[in-house]
Amino acid sequence: MFIPAIKHTLQGALSVALLMVSSASFVQAADEKRNVILIIGDGMDDQQITIARNYLKGANGRLLLDAMALRSTSHILTVEDAVSSSPVYVADSANSATSMATGQITSIGRIATSAGEDKDIITIAELAKAAGFSTGVVSSASVTDATPASFIAHVISRDCENPTRMSVAGDNPSWVNAELCKTDRVDNGGAGSIAQQIALGSTDVVLGGGMKHFQPRGADSDKTLLKMAQDNGYQLVTNAAELMSNKSSGKLLGLFSEHTMPTRLRGEDGRIAERPLPSLLYNISSDLGSVVLPESMRCEENPDYAGMTSIKQMTDAAIKHLSTKADRGFFLMVESASIDKASHKRNACGSIGELAQLEEALASAQKFAADHPNTLILVTADHGQAAQLIPNPKAGQAFYTPGHIARITTPEGQIMAINYATTEAHSEKHTGTNVPLFANIEGQGRVPSMVTQPEIFNIMSAYLGLIP
Amino acid sequence: MFIPAIKHTLQGALSVALLMVSSASFVQAADEKRNVILIIGDGMDDQQITIARNYLKGANGRLLLDAMALRSTSHILTVEDAVSSSPVYVADSANSATSMATGQITSIGRIATSAGEDKDIITIAELAKAAGFSTGVVSSASVTDATPASFIAHVISRDCENPTRMSVAGDNPSWVNAELCKTDRVDNGGAGSIAQQIALGSTDVVLGGGMKHFQPRGADSDKTLLKMAQDNGYQLVTNAAELMSNKSSGKLLGLFSEHTMPTRLRGEDGRIAERPLPSLLYNISSDLGSVVLPESMRCEENPDYAGMTSIKQMTDAAIKHLSTKADRGFFLMVESASIDKASHKRNACGSIGELAQLEEALASAQKFAADHPNTLILVTADHGQAAQLIPNPKAGQAFYTPGHIARITTPEGQIMAINYATTEAHSEKHTGTNVPLFANIEGQGRVPSMVTQPEIFNIMSAYLGLIP
Repeated sequence: MFIPAIKHTLQGALSVALLMVSSASFVQAADEKRNVILIIGDGMDDQQITIARNYLKGANGRLLLDAMALRSTSHILTVEDAVSSSPVYVADSANSATSMATGQITSIGRIATSAGEDKDIITIAELAKAAGFSTGVVSSASVTDATPASFIAHVISRDCENPTRMSVAGDNPSWVNAELCKTDRVDNGGAGSIAQQIALGSTDVVLGGGMKHFQPRGADSDKTLLKMAQDNGYQLVTNAAELMSNKSSGKLLGLFSEHTMPTRLRGEDGRIAERPLPSLLYNISSDLGSVVLPESMRCEENPDYAGMTSIKQMTDAAIKHLSTKADRGFFLMVESASIDKASHKRNACGSIGELAQLEEALASAQKFAADHPNTLILVTADHGQAAQLIPNPKAGQAFYTPGHIARITTPEGQIMAINYATTEAHSEKHTGTNVPLFANIEGQGRVPSMVTQPEIFNIMSAYLGLIP
Repeated sequence: MFIPAIKHTLQGALSVALLMVSSASFVQAADEKRNVILIIGDGMDDQQITIARNYLKGANGRLLLDAMALRSTSHILTVEDAVSSSPVYVADSANSATSMATGQITSIGRIATSAGEDKDIITIAELAKAAGFSTGVVSSASVTDATPASFIAHVISRDCENPTRMSVAGDNPSWVNAELCKTDRVDNGGAGSIAQQIALGSTDVVLGGGMKHFQPRGADSDKTLLKMAQDNGYQLVTNAAELMSNKSSGKLLGLFSEHTMPTRLRGEDGRIAERPLPSLLYNISSDLGSVVLPESMRCEENPDYAGMTSIKQMTDAAIKHLSTKADRGFFLMVESASIDKASHKRNACGSIGELAQLEEALASAQKFAADHPNTLILVTADHGQAAQLIPNPKAGQAFYTPGHIARITTPEGQIMAINYATTEAHSEKHTGTNVPLFANIEGQGRVPSMVTQPEIFNIMSAYLGLIP
């Protein structure tokens, strides 16, 4: 399938999308609604799933994921920005979400723009919207974060989240490369930051964290992005009560935390993985000294999570809103973001709690699909993460990780040892492993035993009849 | 399904197997042959598969594995030996092969014996043999190693490979716990070492490494185990030419190397993963110094592999031998052992070459199944391994692994960085991740989207009509 890439203008992209769609012969009858719910567990590779299963269900237990009708695997591809034919073997959330959202491979950090040429690439949410579907994104990260952004915005770099981050004079974290955002600035003829594109966009439901990205004034405007969003027809909700009681049938913007939402679980007393401590004598000979491993710990409720809107609540609200409103059906992307973010921080319990939230969102999707069988549910990850389930050393066994280890006491009373050892730096690294892809029964005959990430776009687009 | 466990005697176990099978109502018609080919990539988790795919086929390539009709996942279970209800989250090849061979969970190190009680557990090879199928095992490890042994022998510990290893006075490697083998010694009423059980056994085809385990004299015998095997009807072959030209229809024992067969590939000049070297100044501040990463390298032919019999040659010979001979069909287990063994040694190229060999064996199995459609092919791993595909640091990026890294230049000219960081000890550790399970089209309706390892036994047994 050919998807045209158009420089910079979302409007231009949408015009072409409308053109494409109006000329398409749809697969399904016009009066038969079809829905796609794509659930992305950020960093949710098989290590993360196994760790979460052992903790949440026990070694003999099953997750909802495990009972899905189909299991496939997704191969992750990214490329050098300068030489788009040169593969890079480990991806990030921006390029990998872009692949799923657009069907095209791009380079690391890009949000629905092409490697090298920097052209906007139409996303499935835009195609679906233009074809008469409702669309939504839900995330436990900021709604401007790489995964949700790749479905509803187009910028050269995930760093360009809000107007301040696009300004070299802005008060930004050291890792933000504002210079890179120049090409997307409004005063350069671009569509502005991710937050600005969301505020001025047409996505029906946008729910997640990231309030702080909507508080700056819009580029070329004396209004905040929040106000711009409201002027553009968005109803704003900021907590679970408002979300659940919202009766508006118009566009809905829910921002429930300043940035990433806190994880539901954390390590005992906030502990994360720690370094084993070999004694000085041990460094001379393993016969002379010993290694002190971090104490085992349980996972506990994260006090920062108290009162937070859950991924399930957001998913329920999004499904309700989209399903009552749509004429042809809907496309919804739900991201459980902190499987990855907690793993970067070596916070095993954080990842486990976030995967538990993904399971709840999946249950909501399955409940809807039970009543609406023309609903394709896909669950996948965007890339692998650092965490490894390794043997828990027994008394007298001296081996130990060169990295950090979390020794989690599971509810069944055994110790699960989780290793983080991809880097000496502050933040653990992604891995390049294939990741799981699950589908409900609607995936039968549509999801082969292996896909690449762009093929996920193809499967979803074909299901909604968006492919001419 | 209930499989009785019988203390110590293979003879006893087989009698019960015969009893069970003779009273069973077989699923298939008696005149319709059925075959199972189980291919086990030892340690072949998704990291290993992705790494091998990138190297062997390129980032956009596909392995034969990827094109198999069905992809499922296998959850690995093991238990404490003392408290068999207590799960242990990371397994070894002995207990996991036992689960697949017998349908029962056991503790680490055990070969087809039960946790705690130490009772022999009937294997699928024994059940199949008793029911009139031919049986074979092929491995690139010693045929006495944990994976093949678990299908055709019963001992308390994988260490009990040969009569010397069962003797506390034996000249044994330091890691061998001969004391533990006491219960299986012939002079204690046991069936003796793994090699002795193979020599005196009835498996039709046994091919692999491990000649050295058959050179000692048998327990209670003045003959070597090799001689005992020949007296028991085994034709002995020791190189590929003998294997290919063998016309005997009797039992076949092929021993092609002293112990584990060498891997086909190795790192350039024999290099394996190495430690990054931060400068002294870097240890004070990452702004002051730098980190020297190991030079990138290609994989090259391993000179030790020259003249070695390949897994494909062994598989072809086994299939030919079993398929011409059987009355009801055959059960064949093929192990590609050194995906794991090379990963223990941080030898990424070794694992890649071994996975290439697994692909060739799969091609042989598929070729046979194309002409013999009543052939179920399953491919899986026994457990995860240490290797992780991580980002290759670019110029100026300072992050580096606390462990060892191999930076492999792929045929497509990019660098693939493979991290080994589960331990400071000599040998990298297994991981507890779920592993892939692939099936050919015969798996349709038989292999669900997730299994536990004992369920692999159930699937194979049901296919062969061995389950009453």
